[in-house]
Amino acid sequence: ELAERCASLFNSRLLDGIHLTITAGPTREAIDPVRYISNHSSGKMGYALASAAADAGARVSLISGPTNLACPERVKRIDVVSASDMHDAAMAEMGQCQVFIACAAVADYRPANCAEQKIKKTDDSMRIELVRNPDIVSAVASHPQRPFTVGFAAETQDLLRYAKDKLERKNLDMIVANDVANTSIGFNANDNAVTVLWPTGNQTIAQMGKRQLAAQLITLIAQRFLSAEN
Amino acid sequence: ELAERCASLFNSRLLDGIHLTITAGPTREAIDPVRYISNHSSGKMGYALASAAADAGARVSLISGPTNLACPERVKRIDVVSASDMHDAAMAEMGQCQVFIACAAVADYRPANCAEQKIKKTDDSMRIELVRNPDIVSAVASHPQRPFTVGFAAETQDLLRYAKDKLERKNLDMIVANDVANTSIGFNANDNAVTVLWPTGNQTIAQMGKRQLAAQLITLIAQRFLSAEN
Repeated sequence: ELAERCASLFNSRLLDGIHLTITAGPTREAIDPVRYISNHSSGKMGYALASAAADAGARVSLISGPTNLACPERVKRIDVVSASDMHDAAMAEMGQCQVFIACAAVADYRPANCAEQKIKKTDDSMRIELVRNPDIVSAVASHPQRPFTVGFAAETQDLLRYAKDKLERKNLDMIVANDVANTSIGFNANDNAVTVLWPTGNQTIAQMGKRQLAAQLITLIAQRFLSAEN
Repeated sequence: ELAERCASLFNSRLLDGIHLTITAGPTREAIDPVRYISNHSSGKMGYALASAAADAGARVSLISGPTNLACPERVKRIDVVSASDMHDAAMAEMGQCQVFIACAAVADYRPANCAEQKIKKTDDSMRIELVRNPDIVSAVASHPQRPFTVGFAAETQDLLRYAKDKLERKNLDMIVANDVANTSIGFNANDNAVTVLWPTGNQTIAQMGKRQLAAQLITLIAQRFLSAEN
């Protein structure tokens, strides 16, 4: 706890006056009025980052999919449901922020058609046709007035290879690689352990509580952001 | 509150010594280790029924999909995730209970194959092949040593027609018809209003809090169960 308080004191100057946007949680893609496709993201990591960034002095907008978490103090939460909603909210926030952290587990696909009425079960089998959702972090990173853009890679295999590829392909400034196959960390767990990659380096943060990890991540992101600014 | 306390006192003898099983909440059907199909059921109605049944003196087993609700006092909760899990738990409980209330919003379909690794997005479109899940309430109601079986019908249109059809087709003793198109009641709302149908009659319960409604439903179910016993 002392270490946390020291980190928080140290952080308290780092992001003073910086506007930071974080996406968090899962998205839900409607199949019909009753059913949806979602994922196991709890939102804990994104909320912890929002809280740590506010502790570091930033003005924080938290664009959140459906979670059961309380909004951290001094954070402006914008509630969304689907990936399309989240994309629109991100585009609206983007012009006003200097740092964008895409921590949400956005659904890659959504049902091609959302049925207006609950679909009746009639056949022994059924298929759902899916179409790609907008790629939010790519849209942010490829914008002419792009903020410093940080992505997340949640994978169950070949984590660092996918993460490095995503960093380059999406033109990100940093990427946080998260092994979600390990159930003691990642989705819904209280602990996490990550490797952070940027074009010229990387850093591994060992397993610890998500709040403590968030403080370290925000410090690292702030350092890279500030050195890119100067 | 006085009315609730009276109802609870009246109920306190109705189900003494009766073993009652209730299913509640949504189920989640895995697409891969990260993604799943689910629905908007909060579990509130099933949990309120479990609590009301325990107040009425019943020994209650609550087979629950993933919810964020606390287990009611004096209720044994059995946690499940998928429809298959819930089916297995229901079959295991069935032999020991005299009343079975199927309140869960069980997914009708599950992905034909659950991918072992997170599916990578590669194409602009994708399809998920689905197969039918076991029909839990039908399996219970068609068993030679069937308990008194109560189903729920959650619909967005033609509610009473579907409910009556389901009552007959699945050989249920009672069915509770729930209009989930009305957002002031049903999924996730705190209020509910239902029409209960049985082979020889029906009763409508006007909109009220789910706890109060649960007490009235348990009274009605107990009355019909006890008159069927004698």
